[in-house]
Amino acid sequence: MKLYTYYRSQASFRVRITLNLKGIAREDSFLHLEKGDQFTAEYRAINPQMVVPTLIDGDTKLFQSLAILEYLDERYPDPPLLPADPVARAWVRGLALINVADSHPLIVPRVRHYLTDVLKVSDEQRLAWIQHWLRAGLEAIEALLAEHPSSGSFCHGPRPTIADICLVTQVTPAKTFNLPLDPYPRVMRVFDACMAIPAFANAHPAKQRDAE
Amino acid sequence: MKLYTYYRSQASFRVRITLNLKGIAREDSFLHLEKGDQFTAEYRAINPQMVVPTLIDGDTKLFQSLAILEYLDERYPDPPLLPADPVARAWVRGLALINVADSHPLIVPRVRHYLTDVLKVSDEQRLAWIQHWLRAGLEAIEALLAEHPSSGSFCHGPRPTIADICLVTQVTPAKTFNLPLDPYPRVMRVFDACMAIPAFANAHPAKQRDAE
Repeated sequence: MKLYTYYRSQASFRVRITLNLKGIAREDSFLHLEKGDQFTAEYRAINPQMVVPTLIDGDTKLFQSLAILEYLDERYPDPPLLPADPVARAWVRGLALINVADSHPLIVPRVRHYLTDVLKVSDEQRLAWIQHWLRAGLEAIEALLAEHPSSGSFCHGPRPTIADICLVTQVTPAKTFNLPLDPYPRVMRVFDACMAIPAFANAHPAKQRDAE
Repeated sequence: MKLYTYYRSQASFRVRITLNLKGIAREDSFLHLEKGDQFTAEYRAINPQMVVPTLIDGDTKLFQSLAILEYLDERYPDPPLLPADPVARAWVRGLALINVADSHPLIVPRVRHYLTDVLKVSDEQRLAWIQHWLRAGLEAIEALLAEHPSSGSFCHGPRPTIADICLVTQVTPAKTFNLPLDPYPRVMRVFDACMAIPAFANAHPAKQRDAE
């Protein structure tokens, strides 16, 4: 499969982890989001949102990381990334969406650029914004893990699910932006368990060929 | 089922549409987000993110609107809100996520309040922010509909899917915030087809008992 990716993109990170867990080989096509590679006419024709990732599986073009994770889990079900029970699936998806649909969208490059370039906020204000929304997500995930009887080394049950993949992409930017993580022991237990797995570790931004 | 809801919440709107399409009766518990009802200790114990919606189905507590939609579709499969084919499912979910995971998170009350209360942006700057992110999502959805052979009255195939539900919650705030919609004829064709269906129309914010 071909992955349009940027090493620092947390959404690309989610897809890299998933492909690794499924044992699917990929060819990377690198876009440098800070240099604006995503705005070329060529890439806009591939992804009208002008964001990464885009995954090409044969004739199929896939966009939006969570939709890609669900697709990969349906087409390549071993190992499964969602539990079988609908209630557990809803919990796993809900936890994933705290990162995917609430925290992460607020800290992506296009938003950081708007804050600086259009709203003219200071570097300090921009960092406080990023930390504020990351913290809100971490607090919610920590509280939900505390009340969920099937959480432990992973968010639900004995192996990683999409909730763990998206928990990792909540923690990695928190580390990048110097947010203290001591208040989130359950989150960090899951993060550490995940990052001990080669499929996760090898997908980390710092391990990518386009890393700077 | 019991739904914790606020009439203006687009995420609650998605769940109301889905319950109506599935023919599931609900009891509403209203929270006024602008008055801060979501921050009470009582509601925080129910939803640590302090957002709506939360849906209670028997002993099961469900959070994050897209996870709730997927749960309802798995537990109450008639009528289906996702196609059967994995490629089509990925397209439908991807389109939904443009709203759920990119546009909508940037315009919710907590973000609008941060812009005003912390970053001290003007009313004009705040409106420009809201319109900017709504426009980005609408442009992407319009472009994707144009290249998708199975789109027409609905985003995919002959009946509404989660993509249509989330397209509606992209358009409704665009109307609220006075964004011109003429540039998006495919989006508006789908919106109009959806809003002609009572399950959608009766879920509209203006039709709710807590509407002001």
